[in-house]
Amino acid sequence: MTKIAVFPGSFDPITLGHTDMIERSARLFDKIYVAIGKNSTKSYLLSPEQKIRTVNEACAAIKNCEVIDYDGLTIDLCLRLGAKYIVRGLRSGTDFDYERSIALMNATMKPEIETIFFISRAELGGINSSIVREIWKNNGDIEKFVPKSVLDCLNHN
Amino acid sequence: MTKIAVFPGSFDPITLGHTDMIERSARLFDKIYVAIGKNSTKSYLLSPEQKIRTVNEACAAIKNCEVIDYDGLTIDLCLRLGAKYIVRGLRSGTDFDYERSIALMNATMKPEIETIFFISRAELGGINSSIVREIWKNNGDIEKFVPKSVLDCLNHN
Amino acid sequence: MTKIAVFPGSFDPITLGHTDMIERSARLFDKIYVAIGKNSTKSYLLSPEQKIRTVNEACAAIKNCEVIDYDGLTIDLCLRLGAKYIVRGLRSGTDFDYERSIALMNATMKPEIETIFFISRAELGGINSSIVREIWKNNGDIEKFVPKSVLDCLNHN
Amino acid sequence: MTKIAVFPGSFDPITLGHTDMIERSARLFDKIYVAIGKNSTKSYLLSPEQKIRTVNEACAAIKNCEVIDYDGLTIDLCLRLGAKYIVRGLRSGTDFDYERSIALMNATMKPEIETIFFISRAELGGINSSIVREIWKNNGDIEKFVPKSVLDCLNHN
Amino acid sequence: MTKIAVFPGSFDPITLGHTDMIERSARLFDKIYVAIGKNSTKSYLLSPEQKIRTVNEACAAIKNCEVIDYDGLTIDLCLRLGAKYIVRGLRSGTDFDYERSIALMNATMKPEIETIFFISRAELGGINSSIVREIWKNNGDIEKFVPKSVLDCLNHN
Amino acid sequence: MTKIAVFPGSFDPITLGHTDMIERSARLFDKIYVAIGKNSTKSYLLSPEQKIRTVNEACAAIKNCEVIDYDGLTIDLCLRLGAKYIVRGLRSGTDFDYERSIALMNATMKPEIETIFFISRAELGGINSSIVREIWKNNGDIEKFVPKSVLDCLNHN
Repeated sequence: MTKIAVFPGSFDPITLGHTDMIERSARLFDKIYVAIGKNSTKSYLLSPEQKIRTVNEACAAIKNCEVIDYDGLTIDLCLRLGAKYIVRGLRSGTDFDYERSIALMNATMKPEIETIFFISRAELGGINSSIVREIWKNNGDIEKFVPKSVLDCLNHN
Repeated sequence: MTKIAVFPGSFDPITLGHTDMIERSARLFDKIYVAIGKNSTKSYLLSPEQKIRTVNEACAAIKNCEVIDYDGLTIDLCLRLGAKYIVRGLRSGTDFDYERSIALMNATMKPEIETIFFISRAELGGINSSIVREIWKNNGDIEKFVPKSVLDCLNHN
Repeated sequence: MTKIAVFPGSFDPITLGHTDMIERSARLFDKIYVAIGKNSTKSYLLSPEQKIRTVNEACAAIKNCEVIDYDGLTIDLCLRLGAKYIVRGLRSGTDFDYERSIALMNATMKPEIETIFFISRAELGGINSSIVREIWKNNGDIEKFVPKSVLDCLNHN
Repeated sequence: MTKIAVFPGSFDPITLGHTDMIERSARLFDKIYVAIGKNSTKSYLLSPEQKIRTVNEACAAIKNCEVIDYDGLTIDLCLRLGAKYIVRGLRSGTDFDYERSIALMNATMKPEIETIFFISRAELGGINSSIVREIWKNNGDIEKFVPKSVLDCLNHN
Repeated sequence: MTKIAVFPGSFDPITLGHTDMIERSARLFDKIYVAIGKNSTKSYLLSPEQKIRTVNEACAAIKNCEVIDYDGLTIDLCLRLGAKYIVRGLRSGTDFDYERSIALMNATMKPEIETIFFISRAELGGINSSIVREIWKNNGDIEKFVPKSVLDCLNHN
Repeated sequence: MTKIAVFPGSFDPITLGHTDMIERSARLFDKIYVAIGKNSTKSYLLSPEQKIRTVNEACAAIKNCEVIDYDGLTIDLCLRLGAKYIVRGLRSGTDFDYERSIALMNATMKPEIETIFFISRAELGGINSSIVREIWKNNGDIEKFVPKSVLDCLNHN
């Protein structure tokens, strides 16, 4: 049976931590949807169109990966896509405690959807989108944290 | 001597995690005040009136429990009510680290007020009001996370 | 109804962190049993008799407190004593993660026994019996960490 | 391509937390090896033969699951079995911090072996083999924590 | 060689936890800059001028300490000041997980800047600027949490 | 004034995580003592003589570093050496919770001795001496985790 997974996030911006997770997920699953949440209330660095473009370019080399954006709950997206798995990355115990609440509530609502976790690669363990946004706003150099597509996009703004 | 406790929160909305804590507190204390903070800066799902109504209905079967709302510090509320105890629930190490700061600062200000903690029941351990709000806003089914009074209230909005 | 609690531990040795918890528990409960586990596999600083003596002396001023030693499970001890509560102290998120497993397994076996937690007083937050043992073995000064009864006992060895 | 995973552990004894992980892994992977470490230095409740028997019986209904025991490193076992994945369960932030070190060191030695994590089901979140051993040794009732095969084995000892 | 460090923060308000860190840093380093971030998006209790005044007064007795405010990244400030060290305080595992991300990203951008950490003194371990702000807004007594300069400033508002 | 620090540990074996800490400490302090605890109760991979030799070789290039072994408390060693600082590394929130207890108890006994912390470099964050020992005992390849001196020593055993 085809194993399909969703890697959800706000990707504002997509980081090298995310692309590492997506590549590793793409080896485990037959198909991986990178799903950009539209309804996030967080302050954006990138517009919705920029997010789609930068994520698409960053994942272009991964054949079994498709980038989409979505409204609503991630578990409802999974049902629409026929995905049985949600993939999330973990950097720290604090990440774990937060992700655990979401995963358990998702499992209560839809027991047929499973959440699995990867641990961030050691050398990428500190990368965090919100700190990347702060660095960018303060004229810092983010090239070691994000894929080239994000640099291109931000430099053309 | 009568042992009185306050269970403070924003209850936006009250969850089954909260009602479990309140029931357990009501067995330990002679009187438990469920205290709805009015001055929270968090974005509301429920209006102040709806919070009072839903919490009252959810706690109606607990005889030694009284629902109130309040402004100001929880320790000042305790003094007004003659309560020596604040009750809080813990789900995770992250919860603990946050609650510890508040409990220690309260103990510095009013050493006569004690904070005690219950651990969330295992099967309720993931429930979190802010995720419940997100689920509701995204048209998800929250019936396994909140008491009937919240469902009734939201469905009549 | 009389509220009875058990404060279990290995008390090797009893510390000022423990005596703080016992005093606070004694204000909340009508009766508090300080229960010294006999079957611990940990390497002892104090003999069983020394533990009983030092704990008894440390708690002598607390009227509604009784010191006992016990074999077997803490929940079985609670049933024998008519105690509905186990009291434990928390110093850190790591403590919490460990105590949570025990509390949840106890609640699965005997739902009528409740575990409640106090947070260690800030200035006592670092005290840990196993570090006290290490300090003592290395000829360090433990007088700021343990009650007088432990100092007396060790100095007469 | 066939996706093969190893679920390593000491299984002393196998718990309902383990069987839940194994069932969930068996749905994600084509083949799951439940691998009982022989070289653990931990004190045993079960003999090596009892571990194999109890794990085998507990997993008998899972078709794509095979129980083995092994010496040496888990990553070397993976290479011998053609497994690209190690599966581990997480209950808490403390678990995470420990598993992270092992996963990162494994990834340094064999980057082609991936570790993925499941979060323990909420109602099983507190189960811990070492506490199960303590309960058993103290004549407690472990039937809510372990599969029937463990109860059968221990009751015939 | 002169060892220079920066202790950055939003100091809204400066607390006794901060002043403890600054005093301890001033003993380790030849020069310590207390750097007030101007570009924080957090809601202020104190105006920028009030922050500078209160921090200056609180640090007046520390000879090798200088108070500045700054825009932009802390690592860029360090380069401008010739500082090789950033100093931060840690109260809990949650603090650690957050500070680790920032420290690792800073180390990626500027490997020549080192971040070092002090653990908050036990009796100050719970103090947190955002809780201090909440207490003040709710007419609570913050005199045990902040230096005299903050009390003077707020009482003259 | 000369700033002297002690970096204590059991170094069984010294890892690349340790050598990174020592190099970074040696830049901050005028003199750094790498202090090998003799009284550890942990099971050894290396003999006391092998530890001294491997640590010495690993630190040979660091001029202001001196390797010693010691009995007794680290704070007493500091006093004998005229060191005002203990240096420790942190990998995780769990590490922090443990180190915090030791640092606070040390500060209670000898307030004039300060403990400061470095965060492990991201790519070394997972390295742990006890896992290194396990890998070695299971014939794994530890060359990415330890300095050459440890490999030489173990390969000549």
